[in-house]
Amino acid sequence: MTLLTFLSDYGLDDDFVGVCHGVIARIAPDVRVIDVTHGIPRHDVRTGALVLRRALPYFPPGVHLAVVDPEVGTQRRAVALRCADEDRVLVGPDNGLLSLAAQRFGGVVEAVDVTRSPHRLEAAAATFHGRDVFAPVAAAIAAGEPLAAAGEPLDADEILLIGMPLAMADGDGLVAHAIAFDRFGNVTLDVEHEELTGSGLRLGTPVRVNGRDARYATTFADVEAGGLLVYEDAYRTLALAVNRGSARDALGLELDAEVRISPA
Amino acid sequence: MTLLTFLSDYGLDDDFVGVCHGVIARIAPDVRVIDVTHGIPRHDVRTGALVLRRALPYFPPGVHLAVVDPEVGTQRRAVALRCADEDRVLVGPDNGLLSLAAQRFGGVVEAVDVTRSPHRLEAAAATFHGRDVFAPVAAAIAAGEPLAAAGEPLDADEILLIGMPLAMADGDGLVAHAIAFDRFGNVTLDVEHEELTGSGLRLGTPVRVNGRDARYATTFADVEAGGLLVYEDAYRTLALAVNRGSARDALGLELDAEVRISPA
Amino acid sequence: MTLLTFLSDYGLDDDFVGVCHGVIARIAPDVRVIDVTHGIPRHDVRTGALVLRRALPYFPPGVHLAVVDPEVGTQRRAVALRCADEDRVLVGPDNGLLSLAAQRFGGVVEAVDVTRSPHRLEAAAATFHGRDVFAPVAAAIAAGEPLAAAGEPLDADEILLIGMPLAMADGDGLVAHAIAFDRFGNVTLDVEHEELTGSGLRLGTPVRVNGRDARYATTFADVEAGGLLVYEDAYRTLALAVNRGSARDALGLELDAEVRISPA
Repeated sequence: MTLLTFLSDYGLDDDFVGVCHGVIARIAPDVRVIDVTHGIPRHDVRTGALVLRRALPYFPPGVHLAVVDPEVGTQRRAVALRCADEDRVLVGPDNGLLSLAAQRFGGVVEAVDVTRSPHRLEAAAATFHGRDVFAPVAAAIAAGEPLAAAGEPLDADEILLIGMPLAMADGDGLVAHAIAFDRFGNVTLDVEHEELTGSGLRLGTPVRVNGRDARYATTFADVEAGGLLVYEDAYRTLALAVNRGSARDALGLELDAEVRISPA
Repeated sequence: MTLLTFLSDYGLDDDFVGVCHGVIARIAPDVRVIDVTHGIPRHDVRTGALVLRRALPYFPPGVHLAVVDPEVGTQRRAVALRCADEDRVLVGPDNGLLSLAAQRFGGVVEAVDVTRSPHRLEAAAATFHGRDVFAPVAAAIAAGEPLAAAGEPLDADEILLIGMPLAMADGDGLVAHAIAFDRFGNVTLDVEHEELTGSGLRLGTPVRVNGRDARYATTFADVEAGGLLVYEDAYRTLALAVNRGSARDALGLELDAEVRISPA
Repeated sequence: MTLLTFLSDYGLDDDFVGVCHGVIARIAPDVRVIDVTHGIPRHDVRTGALVLRRALPYFPPGVHLAVVDPEVGTQRRAVALRCADEDRVLVGPDNGLLSLAAQRFGGVVEAVDVTRSPHRLEAAAATFHGRDVFAPVAAAIAAGEPLAAAGEPLDADEILLIGMPLAMADGDGLVAHAIAFDRFGNVTLDVEHEELTGSGLRLGTPVRVNGRDARYATTFADVEAGGLLVYEDAYRTLALAVNRGSARDALGLELDAEVRISPA
């Protein structure tokens, strides 16, 4: 049985998510649908892209529908993308939302412009392409329709990439960036734990973060209250925290701000 | 496989929705359940009725469970209704919640009073009929029990209809009503796009709305900031908006207020 | 088909719940998953335990995954417990969360320490055991792996019980406790309706509650506005309410406070 996953910024207060499930059930009654989350902050394409990238590897391969679509009703393209790894197919707006997951799964090997897909519902509304375009296209593919039949062929190079800063080695340390914040003031960096191999940063040792003393630690409790730490979060990504405080505030970080980390 | 859809005002913070899913799974283990939404404002029967009417056509035919039930524990009836179109069955309290969807699906051809249904859980609680009456009745019907066996026969004329204003033609224009508001101040009217055929209202032309200049437009961007527009929303219903403002405030509209629209 | 239920305090704003569903689908693609709720207040183990106890009897027997885990990353054990009744299996942290449901289902007949289960995901993160330990263990058991193969045998007596007050008979009345409050100020007591058999308390008669006049009634409307009542809630548990008011405020009750009820 094919799996279809669904992520959006629709929230659950309205019937938007339910109606998309209904559309999928009409077109692909035997396909199982699992919600990734519908709590992406409204119109926040980049957070949607980051969550897709980190969450999808935990799901079985399938068709991965994602809708965070601030430009619905304009000329932005709708796309379906087959990735190199595991034949995973991503369906959504061509605004960068799918691009980080596509990279994670080995890049795009087949791209289709589904803006005028034959699978669309008749009389698509100007403002609810989740229901009228994306869900029906994803459902048809999950039900076994060939990807190529979902629209017009597209050069994979034309897919919009999301603008993301790029972490780089810097002597024994590195220059990273603050790519997301949570409500506690913890700061996600654009570096995965594995990328530190070869750097001078060693778990359990003191480091400097933007000129401040910190510790490369395993858990918050490894530093005193108010102490700054660099740690690996639940997705194996490097992050900053202050034990019982806010690393974001302590360091005065804005989105995409540089974070220089070096051995102390 | 039969489908069972579920809409309520229970929210997702508590275990109410989950427990109803559990009850359904015990009685009808092979039935698939899809949530429409559980975010209907608490006790708001009319919004529940409007959402059911607009959402259900996107779902496959099946048994459609709905619970918005401010009078639980009183003498209000519990009902199961078979509609003329597609053999859809609606299950819920007889307080008007099901009536708009029933009309949309061609009217009621068989009605059953399930207040004392043999499918009820033993020892039904006074305050949680979703779990003890509606979910088990819907599950039993979805599992194949005949509708007539779910309770006592009922005259379809006895079903409570929801009180809704009625839009009417008025010369070249129409008199409609404000039947719902969203948090942006957009106003849903009780007119569907198709009903305008034959009126003097033409897409892309100026109109008057309660004496004010407006435009019958496709998108918000068709009028300047602060401009009033009449447009077709994602459910093909006529609506009012002010670009970057609130049509509700601009026109001072209360629920069910008259909205007169005429060619300019 | 085996059923897996899932309760947590993760909320639905993030991808935590979705990712756990993904992990389960990878390990046990044919297992059906039903969410009980993910709205348990964050880190509130006792509310989680109470909700599990009252909700699970409405679900078919299966594997019941629950994660409210304030001590994740410490030495607290992870466990899987088989109950005497219906072969139900509970999976979660050993912090009392599972203990009330285990009692309800006849007690624990087989216990396994799954902290280092072979079913764990490789490289478990320090902070997301729902994804890395509990969901994969529950999924493997639901997919048919023997409980004993999920970890090391454990003496059922070592399972942590949740600290709960104990209601007792007191002459013709009883001494109960306020074990939960809802947002309306209604007070859940630690007494089930059936336990009143043999007491001097009779439905429909006046009673005294902590020295105040009240009524043992069926519904709020049985007392005047502002009147105090003892009633049976939707889970057959005794509760206190003030009609159009707050029983919690009226009686000045804190969590676990004594509530003495006697015939008037």
